[in-house]
Amino acid sequence: MADADPDIKLDLRRASRIGLDEAIFCAGKSMDQLARILDRAASEGLPLLLTRLSLTQHATLGAGQRGRIDYDPLSGTGYLGDPHPLVRDRPSVAVVAAGTSDSAVGREAARTLRYYGEPVREITDVGVAGLWRLLERLHDIREMAVVIAVAGMDAALPTVLGGLVPGLVIGVPTSVGYGAARDGETALYAILSSCAPGITVVNIDNGYGAACAAIRALRAMAPSP
Amino acid sequence: MADADPDIKLDLRRASRIGLDEAIFCAGKSMDQLARILDRAASEGLPLLLTRLSLTQHATLGAGQRGRIDYDPLSGTGYLGDPHPLVRDRPSVAVVAAGTSDSAVGREAARTLRYYGEPVREITDVGVAGLWRLLERLHDIREMAVVIAVAGMDAALPTVLGGLVPGLVIGVPTSVGYGAARDGETALYAILSSCAPGITVVNIDNGYGAACAAIRALRAMAPSP
Amino acid sequence: MADADPDIKLDLRRASRIGLDEAIFCAGKSMDQLARILDRAASEGLPLLLTRLSLTQHATLGAGQRGRIDYDPLSGTGYLGDPHPLVRDRPSVAVVAAGTSDSAVGREAARTLRYYGEPVREITDVGVAGLWRLLERLHDIREMAVVIAVAGMDAALPTVLGGLVPGLVIGVPTSVGYGAARDGETALYAILSSCAPGITVVNIDNGYGAACAAIRALRAMAPSP
Amino acid sequence: MADADPDIKLDLRRASRIGLDEAIFCAGKSMDQLARILDRAASEGLPLLLTRLSLTQHATLGAGQRGRIDYDPLSGTGYLGDPHPLVRDRPSVAVVAAGTSDSAVGREAARTLRYYGEPVREITDVGVAGLWRLLERLHDIREMAVVIAVAGMDAALPTVLGGLVPGLVIGVPTSVGYGAARDGETALYAILSSCAPGITVVNIDNGYGAACAAIRALRAMAPSP
Amino acid sequence: MADADPDIKLDLRRASRIGLDEAIFCAGKSMDQLARILDRAASEGLPLLLTRLSLTQHATLGAGQRGRIDYDPLSGTGYLGDPHPLVRDRPSVAVVAAGTSDSAVGREAARTLRYYGEPVREITDVGVAGLWRLLERLHDIREMAVVIAVAGMDAALPTVLGGLVPGLVIGVPTSVGYGAARDGETALYAILSSCAPGITVVNIDNGYGAACAAIRALRAMAPSP
Amino acid sequence: MADADPDIKLDLRRASRIGLDEAIFCAGKSMDQLARILDRAASEGLPLLLTRLSLTQHATLGAGQRGRIDYDPLSGTGYLGDPHPLVRDRPSVAVVAAGTSDSAVGREAARTLRYYGEPVREITDVGVAGLWRLLERLHDIREMAVVIAVAGMDAALPTVLGGLVPGLVIGVPTSVGYGAARDGETALYAILSSCAPGITVVNIDNGYGAACAAIRALRAMAPSP
Amino acid sequence: MADADPDIKLDLRRASRIGLDEAIFCAGKSMDQLARILDRAASEGLPLLLTRLSLTQHATLGAGQRGRIDYDPLSGTGYLGDPHPLVRDRPSVAVVAAGTSDSAVGREAARTLRYYGEPVREITDVGVAGLWRLLERLHDIREMAVVIAVAGMDAALPTVLGGLVPGLVIGVPTSVGYGAARDGETALYAILSSCAPGITVVNIDNGYGAACAAIRALRAMAPSP
Amino acid sequence: MADADPDIKLDLRRASRIGLDEAIFCAGKSMDQLARILDRAASEGLPLLLTRLSLTQHATLGAGQRGRIDYDPLSGTGYLGDPHPLVRDRPSVAVVAAGTSDSAVGREAARTLRYYGEPVREITDVGVAGLWRLLERLHDIREMAVVIAVAGMDAALPTVLGGLVPGLVIGVPTSVGYGAARDGETALYAILSSCAPGITVVNIDNGYGAACAAIRALRAMAPSP
Repeated sequence: MADADPDIKLDLRRASRIGLDEAIFCAGKSMDQLARILDRAASEGLPLLLTRLSLTQHATLGAGQRGRIDYDPLSGTGYLGDPHPLVRDRPSVAVVAAGTSDSAVGREAARTLRYYGEPVREITDVGVAGLWRLLERLHDIREMAVVIAVAGMDAALPTVLGGLVPGLVIGVPTSVGYGAARDGETALYAILSSCAPGITVVNIDNGYGAACAAIRALRAMAPSP
Repeated sequence: MADADPDIKLDLRRASRIGLDEAIFCAGKSMDQLARILDRAASEGLPLLLTRLSLTQHATLGAGQRGRIDYDPLSGTGYLGDPHPLVRDRPSVAVVAAGTSDSAVGREAARTLRYYGEPVREITDVGVAGLWRLLERLHDIREMAVVIAVAGMDAALPTVLGGLVPGLVIGVPTSVGYGAARDGETALYAILSSCAPGITVVNIDNGYGAACAAIRALRAMAPSP
Repeated sequence: MADADPDIKLDLRRASRIGLDEAIFCAGKSMDQLARILDRAASEGLPLLLTRLSLTQHATLGAGQRGRIDYDPLSGTGYLGDPHPLVRDRPSVAVVAAGTSDSAVGREAARTLRYYGEPVREITDVGVAGLWRLLERLHDIREMAVVIAVAGMDAALPTVLGGLVPGLVIGVPTSVGYGAARDGETALYAILSSCAPGITVVNIDNGYGAACAAIRALRAMAPSP
Repeated sequence: MADADPDIKLDLRRASRIGLDEAIFCAGKSMDQLARILDRAASEGLPLLLTRLSLTQHATLGAGQRGRIDYDPLSGTGYLGDPHPLVRDRPSVAVVAAGTSDSAVGREAARTLRYYGEPVREITDVGVAGLWRLLERLHDIREMAVVIAVAGMDAALPTVLGGLVPGLVIGVPTSVGYGAARDGETALYAILSSCAPGITVVNIDNGYGAACAAIRALRAMAPSP
Repeated sequence: MADADPDIKLDLRRASRIGLDEAIFCAGKSMDQLARILDRAASEGLPLLLTRLSLTQHATLGAGQRGRIDYDPLSGTGYLGDPHPLVRDRPSVAVVAAGTSDSAVGREAARTLRYYGEPVREITDVGVAGLWRLLERLHDIREMAVVIAVAGMDAALPTVLGGLVPGLVIGVPTSVGYGAARDGETALYAILSSCAPGITVVNIDNGYGAACAAIRALRAMAPSP
Repeated sequence: MADADPDIKLDLRRASRIGLDEAIFCAGKSMDQLARILDRAASEGLPLLLTRLSLTQHATLGAGQRGRIDYDPLSGTGYLGDPHPLVRDRPSVAVVAAGTSDSAVGREAARTLRYYGEPVREITDVGVAGLWRLLERLHDIREMAVVIAVAGMDAALPTVLGGLVPGLVIGVPTSVGYGAARDGETALYAILSSCAPGITVVNIDNGYGAACAAIRALRAMAPSP
Repeated sequence: MADADPDIKLDLRRASRIGLDEAIFCAGKSMDQLARILDRAASEGLPLLLTRLSLTQHATLGAGQRGRIDYDPLSGTGYLGDPHPLVRDRPSVAVVAAGTSDSAVGREAARTLRYYGEPVREITDVGVAGLWRLLERLHDIREMAVVIAVAGMDAALPTVLGGLVPGLVIGVPTSVGYGAARDGETALYAILSSCAPGITVVNIDNGYGAACAAIRALRAMAPSP
Repeated sequence: MADADPDIKLDLRRASRIGLDEAIFCAGKSMDQLARILDRAASEGLPLLLTRLSLTQHATLGAGQRGRIDYDPLSGTGYLGDPHPLVRDRPSVAVVAAGTSDSAVGREAARTLRYYGEPVREITDVGVAGLWRLLERLHDIREMAVVIAVAGMDAALPTVLGGLVPGLVIGVPTSVGYGAARDGETALYAILSSCAPGITVVNIDNGYGAACAAIRALRAMAPSP
């Protein structure tokens, strides 16, 4: 389109190819870049999922743009325009977070799922050092086709779940912890080394990626009606 | 069972919990340990999937035990007893290997899938440095609900596939390569850092784990009839 | 020169030895050090290429010095004095950046090339997760003697290009990404491990170095008229 | 002693200082060095604990020396002379190993404890991917003053135990696993990052060290009668 | 409890299971989260141990909450409510810090011990590069059942102590140092590799964890009257 | 071709795309795989460059196949069929190796260049710890359009050359050295961090890759007549 | 001394033992701690060497204390009281820095040497990428008994010097550089891997340590008159 | 010399430049290469120091060559021809090894010193976990101008010595130990991070390098008569 902002390219073909439309990773983008992306999307009537949109970035947006965004500060996610309509009535995905500090990452996954129309069950504070809290919620988790298990430090949660539930388990290591936690690398390696069969992993703190993987799994097997 | 070999424990409850029965990782096990495991399984009529069973280990087994095993030397996998019956007619999973050297890991995934009754489409030698070979096979891959993408070195294959196919992509980094390939760590990190949304990963060379993850995804969404 | 500032040494012999005159890496230099370098160069009539000159550093310079500098904020580069005259009419080098976030590094390469008189073709947002965007530009890229491929995260772009174009490919890993991207180390290792033959690499985010390497290649083979 | 072998120094004062007499780490020692150490100890009537004594080393010893050693091939430990008499009737220490492959390290701990007169309860194959097996043994483990938890790969066992038992938990990471297990480093880091309070760690595969730590804890608080 | 703050979960069952009640790790928590935790605990009459409570966080608390906290700025620890009554008259634990910079971590251990009713002997500035200072205090240290040895950089202190005292030695690596000290990783690895038998380790800077381990050891062997 | 060996795929289109035909990396290939590749190439009249062909592999080949291969044991390279005719009379590339132990890698580069028709000047034993040896050869090196600098350990050679010659410098780190040399990683990082402008790097020990990069540079600028 | 500040311990015996009195590493110390140390030293008439004293710390000191300190901002060093008298007339040590950015570390070494009475020759900007600048100064450097070679990035300077001068070479890696320079780790490893015989190393940026090592070497062999 | 073996270059100028003549690092050299080096040296009447000459390499040499070599199997060093005459009567260097396993590296240092005419005092088995053994030898060590301190694992020995002796301390980390010892990297980093002032370091297991550094220090200050 000749008169459009030539620096802003939104990948309009992605949705048709892989069923996931454009998301905007906001960390590191300037306010000017963000404003132009939002304008472009608004002018074309495109909905957008924004991730890693900081409190400061959100507060600095113009009032008009800010007003069009459904913003969640815990996860730093925003919806510009309406999210996709729900594709089913009851959740097929659980997002399970080991500790309070892991909730922000879990929420990013949950918000991404809802943006794409997937209802989601969020369960928090069920780290394996307090095993009974996890076991009390086990029945709720076992029903799900996909379980996104969010955990930092030693990240034992995905392994324990992997031995207890039949569904697809997607582990999300978080950068929670200090020293030997190595900014999430210990959690990442622990999940990759899990002795439970068939656990998959995404990048550290990548709740968005875990949600996209869940959507890939759900849509491929059972296309939404 | 009072008179059974007390050192050999097969996890008989696993199948009922997560739908995947016991597999035996043979690397590092002594011939004596292997023999006792095989005897125990045979005496109980249990089928077994054997992984990382080396040529030497296989050749050293007693003729009786060796005769009961369907062995594949490329992948080092063996079936003791009959694998599970096919759960569907046409494959829902593709195993795509970037290079010839990645085929052994891809074959481990394919053999695991077949053991659990999943038909599988194997595609090899489609590394992205020879992009046209991959694009020629794209139509076959796009039909699949799950794509297991096996690649070493820079492991660009899962990213390229992730931008082209809608299904669940499970990347398997392999230890192929030298120097900067770091025994598969470079491939692992490249897949985790993929810019394609929703790519998942398993441990280096872990074709078995990727297959188990695929089965979790397929069964949870669409239980075999 | 007896009365010159004894602390400021400009390497005047470098140009005669290797054909590349002095460039000033500004990150970490104090405003006082920068001011003295600029004064010295101005008093001797030397042109200078400035790299990693931050917005704040640029804004803090005296108005006189700032006025003599052609500054590009995206790449943080500045020309003091006139850049070298063009050595050819049509570009022999393409600078190809995978994503928007990689453009700053790509621009540093392009600005360095132009400083030394090389025309350059800049192409952005052609990451391999959106393969068609790259293939649309392939014809433009294949004509070039040197291709500088700038990419972060899994850095699959240099490998894909290396299998498609005959020219010299210089990969520039960028520190774009988080977690497993390891501040550019994953991109660096991925390019080093590329399965495409004959890909070379420079340091993370080192657009300047890639441009210098391109100039070495171009001048050695075909001295500018 | 003037005519003693000058190259062999046994630390006779250690027992009086810290209550643990000399142990001989055999890996990497030549047969000649081992033979002279054994001769020296025998001639002085000193008992010795031998660790990492390989099957080959043991088989290569002279028949006389071999006959004086109580050798356990699984752990590679040997007692030269009589171990210390039992210091209590019922075990105060449990050695809990996650998987079959961890048993060799667990046995090294158990054999060291018995050498120093501590009765020990050995429990194996209770990895957290099969959580029920662990929970069935929980009552036995909770009674112990010290629990040595031996686990490789993601090493979730010490964390789960740390949330369930009140005693001192000493985690021993093992080098079991491949790829992302990184020869035990993942297990080590996972235990160090445990979210259960008060878990301690020793070096990878260091069953001997864990046992010595347990003895330090037991003797300091409750000197043997 | 229907009307309680649903986001704040305090693990009330932990004390009964493992004898250590809830501690709150304050680093990274928002002032809002902290305030709600403190209100919840105060409303239920629960005492709390706060760790990593920064000067800024402490100063920002409301006056009412700040007034209820016994705060130690060196270690960043706070007691909300009364600590546990002393369980014995004379200390069974020494906290020994190698250098002045290690004192903050040592103090965290000491404050944790006192919170749980354990008297403690603190000894500082006894790094092994000034060996005589350590030897002068040796008699005081040898009497203790547990020695917490806090050291950064090359962390030689735990090894030297491990060869001189019979009690349980818990090494705490600290992040003191620069360059090759690698934020405590060098100290951590040095302690793990100690040639003194039976030294245990906790995470970098984890004075709290070392104290919990000491309490586990002391209570298990000699329950407080 | 219906009756061809279906497992052996030679990339016949590569030469037309990027001007470099297929090379076979022999390390890790079985004798059976090698034999089939050689048969296929011979039956189609294709020349082949073989790399990392070990002495043992070469000796184990059938006499017929061995007779058709021009083998160089130092570099482990072989030519099947005639190499390409020389594209120029005098060398445009120097291969400079720092030490005797680096010669094998340098020879791999030289043999690859000759296979593709490039004459080459080989210079060895000019490490910078013996600076005069290097300076004596400087004139010969400065004439070259491309300099492949092969060095292990601290790999100072490419930096020193980069400051002295105007051509394209391609550094090849080697795995020569022990301890802190880290199997070539130190050399790799040293070259990437070079303070000389415009030095490029390839993977550790990758003489073949450096030669391919040189050919890309030479052909793009000055197509062979 | 009963009424002295009990928290401030100055190691008064160190000088008698090893000939180097107390130095105070100021980074990370609070203004309060610094003020008390300075007061204590002043009240006892002790001279002190202060290292890593930042501009801000220096400016924040009370005017009285600031007035007693001879402060050098480039190196962040300060002398409280008079430095030791010169022990010889002409320098026996050269401090050679590769680049301008390495000068701060070199100056720390030079200032430490002067504090202890050693005259010193400082030479800067002689990095090996501009080899002639180094060779011009070679005669001055060869005369010295000890050469402290300060270099970041690829740190080729110590190797080149090690092959040219007979004296003791102490390499100081600096954290100058980015990306592959890894905060000085690359320089450290390059020096450790030097192919020149007998090069020693100290910690990254540790100019103070290099100076102390030089003093140890000089005093031991030739006690100052 | 026209008819000499052109592949064998001995650096005859090194001795005149830096006072250390050629040494041959034998590990990784073929028997053919070794034989030619020895022949060349013998024919020119040059003495040679051989390092890392394995038992197998030594045994495989021809009887004539083997007869001309004074070989020490512990250190793997050999003297071809007569070592240099003693430059002083009493040792100025002590080589102090922490444990028995460190002796081989210590012996390499001692043998190198003797080759160059330096008498040496060897002291072994004085690891700091048995502190009294070290303190008993302290008087002997304090007299030395240079102390080479050889230690693996946590390498606390150089730090303890650095606080007790005034001479130049050269730490040699060894690859002794397993797991967290990381093949000597832990020892290396521990020495670099030593809190004792002025400790220098050489590469892992590099006894030869430490000896060369000692010789540089001794000769520069006090030229042999």
